[in-house]
Amino acid sequence: MSDLRERALKFHKDNEGKIALRCKVPVKTKDDLTMAYTPGVAEPCLEINKNFDTIYDYTSRGNWIAVVTNGTAVLGLGDIGAGAGLPVMEGKAVLFKAFGGVDAFPICLDTKDVDKIVETVKLMEPTFGGINLEDIKAPECFEIESRLKEICNIPIFHDDQHGTAVVSAACIINALKLTKKNFEDLKVVVNGAGAAGIAITKLLLSMGTKNIIMCDTKGAIYTGRPVGMNKFKDEVAEITNPNKEQGNLAEVLKGADIFLGVSVANCVTQEMVKSMNKDAIIMAMANPNPEILPNLAVEAGAKVVCTGRSDFPNQVNNVLAFPGIFRAALDVRASEINEEMKIAAARAIADLVSEDELNPEYVIPNAFDLRIAPKVALYVARAAIETGVARRKDVTPEMVENHTKELLK
Amino acid sequence: MSDLRERALKFHKDNEGKIALRCKVPVKTKDDLTMAYTPGVAEPCLEINKNFDTIYDYTSRGNWIAVVTNGTAVLGLGDIGAGAGLPVMEGKAVLFKAFGGVDAFPICLDTKDVDKIVETVKLMEPTFGGINLEDIKAPECFEIESRLKEICNIPIFHDDQHGTAVVSAACIINALKLTKKNFEDLKVVVNGAGAAGIAITKLLLSMGTKNIIMCDTKGAIYTGRPVGMNKFKDEVAEITNPNKEQGNLAEVLKGADIFLGVSVANCVTQEMVKSMNKDAIIMAMANPNPEILPNLAVEAGAKVVCTGRSDFPNQVNNVLAFPGIFRAALDVRASEINEEMKIAAARAIADLVSEDELNPEYVIPNAFDLRIAPKVALYVARAAIETGVARRKDVTPEMVENHTKELLK
Repeated sequence: MSDLRERALKFHKDNEGKIALRCKVPVKTKDDLTMAYTPGVAEPCLEINKNFDTIYDYTSRGNWIAVVTNGTAVLGLGDIGAGAGLPVMEGKAVLFKAFGGVDAFPICLDTKDVDKIVETVKLMEPTFGGINLEDIKAPECFEIESRLKEICNIPIFHDDQHGTAVVSAACIINALKLTKKNFEDLKVVVNGAGAAGIAITKLLLSMGTKNIIMCDTKGAIYTGRPVGMNKFKDEVAEITNPNKEQGNLAEVLKGADIFLGVSVANCVTQEMVKSMNKDAIIMAMANPNPEILPNLAVEAGAKVVCTGRSDFPNQVNNVLAFPGIFRAALDVRASEINEEMKIAAARAIADLVSEDELNPEYVIPNAFDLRIAPKVALYVARAAIETGVARRKDVTPEMVENHTKELLK
Repeated sequence: MSDLRERALKFHKDNEGKIALRCKVPVKTKDDLTMAYTPGVAEPCLEINKNFDTIYDYTSRGNWIAVVTNGTAVLGLGDIGAGAGLPVMEGKAVLFKAFGGVDAFPICLDTKDVDKIVETVKLMEPTFGGINLEDIKAPECFEIESRLKEICNIPIFHDDQHGTAVVSAACIINALKLTKKNFEDLKVVVNGAGAAGIAITKLLLSMGTKNIIMCDTKGAIYTGRPVGMNKFKDEVAEITNPNKEQGNLAEVLKGADIFLGVSVANCVTQEMVKSMNKDAIIMAMANPNPEILPNLAVEAGAKVVCTGRSDFPNQVNNVLAFPGIFRAALDVRASEINEEMKIAAARAIADLVSEDELNPEYVIPNAFDLRIAPKVALYVARAAIETGVARRKDVTPEMVENHTKELLK
């Protein structure tokens, strides 16, 4: 760890951070200046003033998104402050560019006030083609996202929620092929009622799952639970746990088909896995140490184990989802990123593992598989068009796929 | 003009705008990801959380500035809206990069509310090493700038004011050499009481000029003028026009050594130039058409004429100033850009015209003279260090000069 620490610090220091500006136009001659700046630049300004949508023709806005944080839930580090979150936001920008050809800019906001964050992002809207919220703690992140979705005309996406949900869903789609189960019949236990847990729950519900039980530190969440509820958990209680099961994690895990943890290290024992249904699927995504180690889970009877770690098989890595999702959203100029687009992204990721390749240690592709972003973009673009949120009518899903391939060359 | 229009639109459309993100680090292997993102990125985050100043070591913040506008005074186009100003802001970003190696990002804020602009910029402060305000109309721009300077710990610079003032001052420094006059004895008439006019006036005052008369559409501004005053003009009246001259532009221009126009086309006649002192200096900076055409001014007895146009000699072009000023401010980590730094920038620009070269048609260097930014950065860094606003103590002016040269290679 000390070696990683020193290397990581040196890596950041040697490069003086990770991002810079690139000019797409030459500025070598007087004529270049005449075009890029005065007097030429007045012409696109006037066009945009006349017809706002031409902003996508004459500026880079259509390919820029903001990666917005307030530093309250940075990685596993918690509330470290807006500035201290900047290395992560720059890293995210690098991933957006490298994996999706998306130009992303970090905006670290020094406030915990929901109203101020919402207002600030709204004020900046003319600059950006989309907003990726990042590492903002729950429950504030829910309100920020939903309010921004209402008032902005560009896609708003909280990756900690939806990116994680999409990749988890991709794993589950393929794990179900191996276990020959389907979404409708599953009993799923989600441990951890934070941003990711709630988003995964909602996504699995929209994919047909009927029986999901969400647990927090007080055990199963159910309507009317007397302790530890808030308005978000009330909402969760209403849409989950149809049998109103009560009890701690170990109790409700009995007979479950899927354990999905976005919680803490080592909270699942082999006994608990053994109490689950046959061919259990374990999504143990606590970082850096999972809820149960893969070898222990398999020994206890689990069929498929996914974690957040790159040194185990089946890494649930958001980078599989967000670059392609935003690529498509920008290319079709989607007004939002809706549930259908997320499901499409999950199916795209799952489809990249062929029947021949599929096995318990390979349910999702590797992050460096260059087919991912084009495939995700293709499926997401199609879903955007089909659900009527694509504002460009002249772009087909295949054009988006090819554009993505071009950008990643 | 129609040809320019078509070419400019095509130029912007073909490139889909002018700016993109550049990753300074590789993301080709698993180890790259480990360093640039999780888990490696946690290390610089923790360092910054412990000691905020290390943000300059581990992120790109120290080289990024925001180009902030609300689109209320874009070029000569007026209030065209935040989004319609984006081509100019992207252009400015390109100039910052090409001429100063500064990474600049456009932030177009969709509001005219001074409080909201101030608050938004303050909230974004963790992301940026400096703020360049751009194309915000007067008088709001004055309040925004002064309030931000008070609450932010990074340099705040309104280029429309100070960039123009610096380059004008550079012209005047050299024009005075030709006319063998000095700042102390001048009578200067500034026409146009907007952002640039007031900034130029203040800069000339700090350079020793005693008699400056500022005119607006109501004529000379003086203490107690019964019409058309506001708090900014009251302030102007207090520090200018010591003889309380009254009258219209033509009247107060009599006997003046310098006419400095940031006003409207053709408002100065040959008669007016003839009424000025011997060897008059005419700074006719209205765009695109100057207050008087250079040939007419010279015919009427002017010694030196400067305009905003690139097709006449002596173009007052802000690009001579802002890239080097910010380069230095960032490199020495200046807490502000003070008056001494602006004067230093003017002197640097003036010094680039040698005694041999100096003539009425060549008082300032051409924008593409690659010596400019390093020289400006050298002088500005020295001024910052001497006035105690440089927070880095390990950087010398010569290091800043060399760094600038490196970046422009």
